[in-house]
Amino acid sequence: MEKKLREILLRIKKGEMTIKEGMERLKVLPFLELGYAKIDTHRPLRRDLGEVIYGEGKRKEEILGIVAKLKEIGEDCLITRLPSDLGEDLVRKFGGRYFPSAKIFALGKFPKRKKKEKPIPIITAGTSDIPVAEEAAVFLELLGYPVKRIYDVGVAGIHRTFSHLKEIRKGRVIIVIAGMEGALASVVSGLVSKPVIAVPTSYGYGANFQGLSALLAMLASCSPGIGVVNIDNGFGAAYLAHLILSSK
Amino acid sequence: MEKKLREILLRIKKGEMTIKEGMERLKVLPFLELGYAKIDTHRPLRRDLGEVIYGEGKRKEEILGIVAKLKEIGEDCLITRLPSDLGEDLVRKFGGRYFPSAKIFALGKFPKRKKKEKPIPIITAGTSDIPVAEEAAVFLELLGYPVKRIYDVGVAGIHRTFSHLKEIRKGRVIIVIAGMEGALASVVSGLVSKPVIAVPTSYGYGANFQGLSALLAMLASCSPGIGVVNIDNGFGAAYLAHLILSSK
Amino acid sequence: MEKKLREILLRIKKGEMTIKEGMERLKVLPFLELGYAKIDTHRPLRRDLGEVIYGEGKRKEEILGIVAKLKEIGEDCLITRLPSDLGEDLVRKFGGRYFPSAKIFALGKFPKRKKKEKPIPIITAGTSDIPVAEEAAVFLELLGYPVKRIYDVGVAGIHRTFSHLKEIRKGRVIIVIAGMEGALASVVSGLVSKPVIAVPTSYGYGANFQGLSALLAMLASCSPGIGVVNIDNGFGAAYLAHLILSSK
Amino acid sequence: MEKKLREILLRIKKGEMTIKEGMERLKVLPFLELGYAKIDTHRPLRRDLGEVIYGEGKRKEEILGIVAKLKEIGEDCLITRLPSDLGEDLVRKFGGRYFPSAKIFALGKFPKRKKKEKPIPIITAGTSDIPVAEEAAVFLELLGYPVKRIYDVGVAGIHRTFSHLKEIRKGRVIIVIAGMEGALASVVSGLVSKPVIAVPTSYGYGANFQGLSALLAMLASCSPGIGVVNIDNGFGAAYLAHLILSSK
Amino acid sequence: MEKKLREILLRIKKGEMTIKEGMERLKVLPFLELGYAKIDTHRPLRRDLGEVIYGEGKRKEEILGIVAKLKEIGEDCLITRLPSDLGEDLVRKFGGRYFPSAKIFALGKFPKRKKKEKPIPIITAGTSDIPVAEEAAVFLELLGYPVKRIYDVGVAGIHRTFSHLKEIRKGRVIIVIAGMEGALASVVSGLVSKPVIAVPTSYGYGANFQGLSALLAMLASCSPGIGVVNIDNGFGAAYLAHLILSSK
Amino acid sequence: MEKKLREILLRIKKGEMTIKEGMERLKVLPFLELGYAKIDTHRPLRRDLGEVIYGEGKRKEEILGIVAKLKEIGEDCLITRLPSDLGEDLVRKFGGRYFPSAKIFALGKFPKRKKKEKPIPIITAGTSDIPVAEEAAVFLELLGYPVKRIYDVGVAGIHRTFSHLKEIRKGRVIIVIAGMEGALASVVSGLVSKPVIAVPTSYGYGANFQGLSALLAMLASCSPGIGVVNIDNGFGAAYLAHLILSSK
Amino acid sequence: MEKKLREILLRIKKGEMTIKEGMERLKVLPFLELGYAKIDTHRPLRRDLGEVIYGEGKRKEEILGIVAKLKEIGEDCLITRLPSDLGEDLVRKFGGRYFPSAKIFALGKFPKRKKKEKPIPIITAGTSDIPVAEEAAVFLELLGYPVKRIYDVGVAGIHRTFSHLKEIRKGRVIIVIAGMEGALASVVSGLVSKPVIAVPTSYGYGANFQGLSALLAMLASCSPGIGVVNIDNGFGAAYLAHLILSSK
Amino acid sequence: MEKKLREILLRIKKGEMTIKEGMERLKVLPFLELGYAKIDTHRPLRRDLGEVIYGEGKRKEEILGIVAKLKEIGEDCLITRLPSDLGEDLVRKFGGRYFPSAKIFALGKFPKRKKKEKPIPIITAGTSDIPVAEEAAVFLELLGYPVKRIYDVGVAGIHRTFSHLKEIRKGRVIIVIAGMEGALASVVSGLVSKPVIAVPTSYGYGANFQGLSALLAMLASCSPGIGVVNIDNGFGAAYLAHLILSSK
Repeated sequence: MEKKLREILLRIKKGEMTIKEGMERLKVLPFLELGYAKIDTHRPLRRDLGEVIYGEGKRKEEILGIVAKLKEIGEDCLITRLPSDLGEDLVRKFGGRYFPSAKIFALGKFPKRKKKEKPIPIITAGTSDIPVAEEAAVFLELLGYPVKRIYDVGVAGIHRTFSHLKEIRKGRVIIVIAGMEGALASVVSGLVSKPVIAVPTSYGYGANFQGLSALLAMLASCSPGIGVVNIDNGFGAAYLAHLILSSK
Repeated sequence: MEKKLREILLRIKKGEMTIKEGMERLKVLPFLELGYAKIDTHRPLRRDLGEVIYGEGKRKEEILGIVAKLKEIGEDCLITRLPSDLGEDLVRKFGGRYFPSAKIFALGKFPKRKKKEKPIPIITAGTSDIPVAEEAAVFLELLGYPVKRIYDVGVAGIHRTFSHLKEIRKGRVIIVIAGMEGALASVVSGLVSKPVIAVPTSYGYGANFQGLSALLAMLASCSPGIGVVNIDNGFGAAYLAHLILSSK
Repeated sequence: MEKKLREILLRIKKGEMTIKEGMERLKVLPFLELGYAKIDTHRPLRRDLGEVIYGEGKRKEEILGIVAKLKEIGEDCLITRLPSDLGEDLVRKFGGRYFPSAKIFALGKFPKRKKKEKPIPIITAGTSDIPVAEEAAVFLELLGYPVKRIYDVGVAGIHRTFSHLKEIRKGRVIIVIAGMEGALASVVSGLVSKPVIAVPTSYGYGANFQGLSALLAMLASCSPGIGVVNIDNGFGAAYLAHLILSSK
Repeated sequence: MEKKLREILLRIKKGEMTIKEGMERLKVLPFLELGYAKIDTHRPLRRDLGEVIYGEGKRKEEILGIVAKLKEIGEDCLITRLPSDLGEDLVRKFGGRYFPSAKIFALGKFPKRKKKEKPIPIITAGTSDIPVAEEAAVFLELLGYPVKRIYDVGVAGIHRTFSHLKEIRKGRVIIVIAGMEGALASVVSGLVSKPVIAVPTSYGYGANFQGLSALLAMLASCSPGIGVVNIDNGFGAAYLAHLILSSK
Repeated sequence: MEKKLREILLRIKKGEMTIKEGMERLKVLPFLELGYAKIDTHRPLRRDLGEVIYGEGKRKEEILGIVAKLKEIGEDCLITRLPSDLGEDLVRKFGGRYFPSAKIFALGKFPKRKKKEKPIPIITAGTSDIPVAEEAAVFLELLGYPVKRIYDVGVAGIHRTFSHLKEIRKGRVIIVIAGMEGALASVVSGLVSKPVIAVPTSYGYGANFQGLSALLAMLASCSPGIGVVNIDNGFGAAYLAHLILSSK
Repeated sequence: MEKKLREILLRIKKGEMTIKEGMERLKVLPFLELGYAKIDTHRPLRRDLGEVIYGEGKRKEEILGIVAKLKEIGEDCLITRLPSDLGEDLVRKFGGRYFPSAKIFALGKFPKRKKKEKPIPIITAGTSDIPVAEEAAVFLELLGYPVKRIYDVGVAGIHRTFSHLKEIRKGRVIIVIAGMEGALASVVSGLVSKPVIAVPTSYGYGANFQGLSALLAMLASCSPGIGVVNIDNGFGAAYLAHLILSSK
Repeated sequence: MEKKLREILLRIKKGEMTIKEGMERLKVLPFLELGYAKIDTHRPLRRDLGEVIYGEGKRKEEILGIVAKLKEIGEDCLITRLPSDLGEDLVRKFGGRYFPSAKIFALGKFPKRKKKEKPIPIITAGTSDIPVAEEAAVFLELLGYPVKRIYDVGVAGIHRTFSHLKEIRKGRVIIVIAGMEGALASVVSGLVSKPVIAVPTSYGYGANFQGLSALLAMLASCSPGIGVVNIDNGFGAAYLAHLILSSK
Repeated sequence: MEKKLREILLRIKKGEMTIKEGMERLKVLPFLELGYAKIDTHRPLRRDLGEVIYGEGKRKEEILGIVAKLKEIGEDCLITRLPSDLGEDLVRKFGGRYFPSAKIFALGKFPKRKKKEKPIPIITAGTSDIPVAEEAAVFLELLGYPVKRIYDVGVAGIHRTFSHLKEIRKGRVIIVIAGMEGALASVVSGLVSKPVIAVPTSYGYGANFQGLSALLAMLASCSPGIGVVNIDNGFGAAYLAHLILSSK
């Protein structure tokens, strides 16, 4: 940015650029700057996986169109919340890979496994929380992170949680996924000295109110050190974990 | 009830009671029957402690009037949610005893300690839940039950809970009191094979919404075997525990 | 536990066990202890019925896989919230029994009827609450408890409630199931001196808000002695009743 | 209205009124008509009591100003939700009467007692609902209706309700006032064949949520024939009862 | 009741009835009394139309079974919220009549039109509120009441409301049905001196929250004299209107 | 109106109209007056497009009937929220035009483009908000307004918003449509000195609660100058924009 | 902005400014540009009144500090939600003017009355809505707009609304302020062809839930053409009205 | 831990410790192990600052008692949400330091400034969010982190945000604190590639509902990479930031 600015000014000074021309260039710069900022923000991610698209609610033609266009311009892409029939269609048409457990379609060059990174524990309270967990796990794996899946260790049988304590403590950041009363986030957070990303799920019924019980419980946790993302938002948790691990 | 009925009919048959008199007696019986039922319900309690009055929101004169009247007719009484200045006033005027930690005033003959009963564990997540716990504890003690207070053992430091596991498991019924995310009820319930009475408290702030987070979490618990009472309702929990323990 | 500990230490002292070996054994103990606790918790139930699985939302293959595996390892199992077509499939494939009214599938050795136990009254306000009631009733019967079904006796015609008063009062614990305004729980609780387990149901419409009206009403009941479980949670009510009746 | 219209037209025809004048008169008529309608609506009430003013939140000077003005122009007035100190001030300054239990101030000629009218039962579940009940009772009495106060007969001790069944059934319309779970409205409505006006009160705590539990319960009642008014709105219930009884 | 009681006692005194026999008779009396009360409650309605059944959520076989049984024992019946295919089925099998606009099936002797009764205005804000209105209208017509349907006169075009003012004012009780913001209830209530029964409907979208906006608006109306029933509860409004008109 | 009134009075004065006749005419006038007002309100719109009908939830026959009738009497019409199959049906049967992106059917003479009007910016945060935006855009275009569609410029990539700042600032009124957290409304409002009409959409999941998050955020915006319409209400936003632009 | 830019470039070209210096100046410009935008946004307002500060929740010293500083640098200021004692303090210390009915303090040169502007109708349903109305009215008057206060014309007595119809229709934009059920916004909007800005107020009790009932009702209004601002936000309504009227 | 275990076993083997003694030591170990875990969790913090106590709602004597005891045993302590009078009392009695802007009292040895750590940007939307921000800032500074306060840069004047972009982007983790519509979190997150911790505040009024609007908006943000903590929970945000920065 500074270089660009200096260059313009130099060329004006030298008379290589008229003032009018320079003004045109400079008026655009603020937005360029912002756009650049944005590219900056997305670069680490984009370098690996290209655009991330939310597939739910998009019609088949829309999805096909987006992927075709991205392939055409050589951009990679990743689609979340994609039904399996559509996912398999995409693989047939464009190649790439579909992960049915995570409902993720990925097209492009996958980064190498980050060998020095410690496995990220992704913990679920029940088996019904697994689809949300897989969205997080597959996304992180596509970014090259090792992942440690620790599923169905909810607090109703807390010994299950404890038997994985060692692996949990190894993680530099921990993702906890739970529906119903969401107590697992508090319990895990109380046992480790690492940041916990908590994902409430809509799993449950009655006073669960589509994930509200778990959401409120995680926000009101008596154990500090928990960052909460939206209900069922496995992708968001993974993205936050990625930012935490790659932040320097 | 049957005995009473038989007696009336016999006395009528024998002419010891006029038909008009008998009718008067009998017309009351349906209600007496219901009242008796009610008395039946309350008997074990009433025998020990007399009437239970909810003190919050009642004006001083009202409280004084009620106690004066009950004393006059020889009835015992117990008042919950009573501010300390009023409680001490009552003790000065009428005798009895005021428990500031529980905000309970009690007047009457206290039952003997039920020696064979195992102590009822009353567990709180934090120190702020203690007033609710004390309401439950003092009420149960007034009824003669031994109580085991286990306070401030919330899941943020779950080792604190575990260090009391033995005492907790001894209880025939367990009362768990927690605000914030209320996770302690799920954790305790998962560790014991005893009925758990859960009391959400309004302690906390923000997404706690005056106890809603703990309430929903306790209702949506992944661990079955929990009966929930109203927010901050220590008395209700104690009363339910008493019914469970005295039910035959 | 203490015995086990003493034994290990003695064997180390005597040189029968190396320190390394002893350390391995001892490090596992805390979790074993917890696991044991868990087994302890579940034992009375597991002895009778094996694992309890929540069937709703699970795919057919998952259900089949779980049952096949449990049968293979000789474990009994019980599945709640199972659609009737799946239930009948399971019976054809694995034997066992499916209860369509309760949507429960059970496979294993059913315990004998607990002859000395008094029938547990299960009371519903309307006919629409019956599926929830049957989940509770069948589950308790599978555990060997006698059950007294008292259905459709809501407060709109309170004489219906009263005509069953005698049977209701006999129960050591009473389950009340009601949707809409949930008033039946308060009324029944006011007529008996036994613990009442209240189950709000999602039955109703409009200001019912999927069971919220009954849930709030039961929690805010003017009659103490009620433990509330989650909306539509017949299984949870039965499980709590079982813990209350088997607690010693 | 028609008479007035005819008269204007006749006077125009006869030349007693200019067209301009007539136009002025007629342009106002549509609103007059509406205003008249309004007067019609309010007439039965206004004749007895004059203006009804909601006192809560109004400052002392405002209240004094309103009453002074109404007195000056010879209008009667009635103020609800008026603190007792203000009420007594008004009596000292302007005469009239203040009812502390109902927080109502009334100034004007009170109608005679409607002797042929049957007493209107006003029933409360608890003693804490009495202020709301008194607002309704005093308002109805000021309108000349006989009232039957039946207080503290909530469903926790349903025999208390039954012992008043005869009086309750006599009413042409019945007002039921309850907080907490509001079950009394359903129970009473199930026992009578008369319209029931239900008033939820904000009395209670926790899952009561300032009257929400009683409000939802009354709306979702399993017994048809209940009209619900706003939380704590004793005046509204009385007004509706008055309209029902005076409607021809 | 008193007569019955006197008779039993006399027969016992005279020895015409044994004490055991008398006891059996008397023990039943309280409930008989209550049952009778209930019959009393329902009599005016039942005489005309028999049982009222809520059809929604009931399976076809259940509906068929209920109607068959009621027909067998000679009881009339009325079913609300019945899908049209089922309704026509019933007519084919059992006779009677199905009203598709109201989703009501009626079987039995219809009462004569109450000739002296003034037509009951049933007013809707929009065309989407009509199904709820028809449920009320058809039910009232089956009970013999004349009904005045005034549909689609919401406040967005308030002149439509005014053009029916005369008919509205004639009603002894007025039913107002509105979704969205429910303002029509307030406006109508402000224009008449009659009781208004307000039915919020779930019609609308977004901030309507399934009828919540209309429900809250009707409860919080600035115009007193409105009794609110549950969202979409046309039957409840009609039933309340019937009780108001038949109350003596 | 005044002219009409004067004319009637004159004719009465002159004897050209009987008093009875005049009365009939005049009694209607108040409503005519109101109706006229209404016509006044709708005139600018109606002149262009005729009746606006909300299509959602109406059955096919109803829609067909309405359009047939309006065509018969020569009235134009516009239907919103109309499924595409129905829309195409209408075009085949009655002519007119169906806009699938907006789900709008329009029949009648379309006004000319308002050439002097500046394009109205319609801005969406994401692609999922586009259907709501199209409803607004097509409706405004049918009324002759030029529209500037600026889609998918949400705050997650705020440079996208900025790159359109010039066009946005040109609008005399700006429509902002956003789901999820609805932040775009605040950001845009902070950048312009024009009225912003904000439309929350139900797009999103979890803590979005069907548009509640965006709705609350837009209402609670820290930037003044925003008028909020109902969730997903593209038509309402366009209508309000039209009123703002045509108000004199 | 362009002038500034040109000037810098010219001076660089001419060598009057070093490149380094120029760079420093220009790097700040992008933000200046944004700031300028902002100034642009605020200019019409700022020119008249200076900064607008929200006074609620600010401590006395803070308020005093802000006003002192603004006065010192010659900036005018306007503070809303300012308690009267503080307001009078400010007047004594700094001059300016305090409007107790609106709780607004204003210091600076007041713009002249916009003589050609038609009075803006500010309409309230009740007297309790007046403080919110005054905040809007005084703010607009300080900006030079003529205002027509039409207070206490709620729909409970709709003739009051109608008697002001002429004045209401004259406004180019109309502000409607109502609590309770908020119906006035729908009624007024249905009677005019002008944009309506609706302000729900927290006035009311019970099912009003601090303004929620009016808020939902206004959003869900059956009459299009209403823009809603936050509960009690009189300032926001006035600001939006100002933007609408000044937008070109 | 392993070392400790080995040592005990060795001493037993060597006979330096009796078996009974060893058992006592070892029985505690499982909890010690858990406690150790806990200590592990807390160690980095505890080493610096000792216990963290939530001061709100605690009585003066309680606070004094806690601090006295901690001082006596040589433990440091930190109290949040402490009123200023109490804070100054503590300083007078026990030394230490009270931070009025953050309402934090700290007693103990403060760690050195972490010189290599980049300043953590703490950003607020408005001035009213500053107390929450100060709680976070002071807590982090006490832990030795450098902090960059960027206050009052909300999106209503987004150029203010941009003018701090450089500093914001330097942070390894960013804390964003906003009330009202909470849009700042989305905007900042969209501009950086760093984890954002979002703190909704209860600042605002009306549809803000004590922070609900900001909370929902932050959870539903269109920009991934945000972890949300409870409303007003500045301490929680700081603690999470600390865990993120110290996690290895």
